[in-house]
Amino acid sequence: MTGIDYRNSGVNIDEGLRAVDLMKREVKKTFNESVLSELGHFGGLFRADFSGMAEPVLVASMDGVGTKLKVASLMEDYSTVGRDLVNHCVNDILVQGAHPLFFLDYIACGKLDAVVAAEIVTGLAKACSDNGCALLGGETAEMPGFYNTGDYDVAGTIVGSVDKNRIIDGSAVVPGHSIIGLASSGLHTNGFSLARAVLFEKAGLTVSDHHSLLGEDTVGEALLKVHRSYLNQMKLLLDQELVTGMAHITGGGVPGNLIRILPEGCGAMITPCWDVPPIFKLIKELGSIPEREMRRAFNLGAGFLIVTSQPEKVTDLLRQAGEEPFEAGEIISGNSIEYHGEGA
Amino acid sequence: MTGIDYRNSGVNIDEGLRAVDLMKREVKKTFNESVLSELGHFGGLFRADFSGMAEPVLVASMDGVGTKLKVASLMEDYSTVGRDLVNHCVNDILVQGAHPLFFLDYIACGKLDAVVAAEIVTGLAKACSDNGCALLGGETAEMPGFYNTGDYDVAGTIVGSVDKNRIIDGSAVVPGHSIIGLASSGLHTNGFSLARAVLFEKAGLTVSDHHSLLGEDTVGEALLKVHRSYLNQMKLLLDQELVTGMAHITGGGVPGNLIRILPEGCGAMITPCWDVPPIFKLIKELGSIPEREMRRAFNLGAGFLIVTSQPEKVTDLLRQAGEEPFEAGEIISGNSIEYHGEGA
Repeated sequence: MTGIDYRNSGVNIDEGLRAVDLMKREVKKTFNESVLSELGHFGGLFRADFSGMAEPVLVASMDGVGTKLKVASLMEDYSTVGRDLVNHCVNDILVQGAHPLFFLDYIACGKLDAVVAAEIVTGLAKACSDNGCALLGGETAEMPGFYNTGDYDVAGTIVGSVDKNRIIDGSAVVPGHSIIGLASSGLHTNGFSLARAVLFEKAGLTVSDHHSLLGEDTVGEALLKVHRSYLNQMKLLLDQELVTGMAHITGGGVPGNLIRILPEGCGAMITPCWDVPPIFKLIKELGSIPEREMRRAFNLGAGFLIVTSQPEKVTDLLRQAGEEPFEAGEIISGNSIEYHGEGA
Repeated sequence: MTGIDYRNSGVNIDEGLRAVDLMKREVKKTFNESVLSELGHFGGLFRADFSGMAEPVLVASMDGVGTKLKVASLMEDYSTVGRDLVNHCVNDILVQGAHPLFFLDYIACGKLDAVVAAEIVTGLAKACSDNGCALLGGETAEMPGFYNTGDYDVAGTIVGSVDKNRIIDGSAVVPGHSIIGLASSGLHTNGFSLARAVLFEKAGLTVSDHHSLLGEDTVGEALLKVHRSYLNQMKLLLDQELVTGMAHITGGGVPGNLIRILPEGCGAMITPCWDVPPIFKLIKELGSIPEREMRRAFNLGAGFLIVTSQPEKVTDLLRQAGEEPFEAGEIISGNSIEYHGEGA
């Protein structure tokens, strides 16, 4: 009778150790003077130094990459999903005025390939460095029978901080304030189930196909464009207290996300005049998707919205930071998000 | 030509909203006076009040439930996995001397069933309440094509705090210190891939089968016993600074986890005289698994180890807290974990 050991039950501890070895260097680069722990400790240690803040508040958010991972899997390119995730999370707490402190990741797969895990973590680490936050810890789980070989799920938690009197919750938004938009790079990390259903299942495209609407990019390349972080562009605006509200445009689109920060009595009139990246036009056309549905599923080119009473100043500062901000609409009396030229 | 909408692409937003509705009440119960945010905000807000600490340090850890979820799925009982996860994470930062502040969860599935998601979150929320921490946020992701219908992956991040001079990192451990053990309730959340391979694949058992070794419990019930939290038992010991090291016995077993906190020049001689829960005996017997392999894959009844120079006092206090602590061994000179009566 032969015994069963851990390896032939589907869990490969050696491959896990190899992954840790491969990712160690990139992770360590994110360790700043606040990080007190070494890799391999039970928990990550981070010095809570909030000097300069009157009432420090921690802001935390958890998110996943979603089925954009399926596109990464089809492209056999896991170098970007880590950046997608970190940037997504950075934006999610940025809208409350918070700056990131540290990030922790969760990677799960059916069969661990150390090189793939290291590729994912390297992307996470790079984005953490870009956003000035430490990749403080993580868990890589091999779960045979749970995931298809080649599939990886990636999720993570960000923790940041903001001084209580600097929290931005939209309560200072009033009718007449302008809505300034910042461009997205594409789908970011939302709407991929719909995009895949349209492009791959309905239209029969593959990731390596070209389409006249997409120019040089293959379908896969257009889909995999990295979710942008808006942190560095927004720092100056926040320091100068020029912003009354911010919305990160994720699942639910402009209507589903902007509404979350509007106070009682405030609605918005959106003027959708900004450039819509070609990938959205392709999805709309091939899927025969009504505009209303498109707006609820995708950011349609508006990755981040800023509500302000000083649109010229905001626009100037954003241009100086290298952005091409656009007018996206105006706060109006009411309680709904409407679009110019259409009913609500 | 019919358009595709979000629902027939496999993502059901209404079911997501229903899940949030179902879980809201339990989550809100975990909100203490430090929580400044409402449900549905982009990020969770937590007041960073570290009064009484000279140099506050945040301690963070991310973990998943692993393939114990497959057993929950077979049992159609998701009421316990949330508690498994929170308790696991609480223990992971407890070993560094930290108390939990807040927790965030990640739930991913192929097809969202609001009742199941709410069952998982209710378990998370209950364990958060038991451990005095807030369930500050979370993400529930529906990822069609990624997970089998009926499968749920569950992961989470805990953030706690400890005063810098109270961090326990094992550096004060010296040869001669005693190792006191606290009982586990069973497998906790580790070794499930091996356990499933032995019990279900090799031995052909099902979750509803009985076995003479397990007494009243079915195989599924024995496997699904809730991962214990050791926080409340340990508080008094930590307050009185009676502990030089702690190890949470997870994947890698006693050898793999105890070694992580031993300083240079310290090893341990383990005396494995404690009660081994019957489920481990069953796995060993049906899988013909060598003892060495069992020790690396499972906690074998020792869920948490305490290193101390004052074993009587520690034992007394633990008994007063309702525990039945056991002598698990002693710190010795060297650098390896050995077992009484055997080579290393």
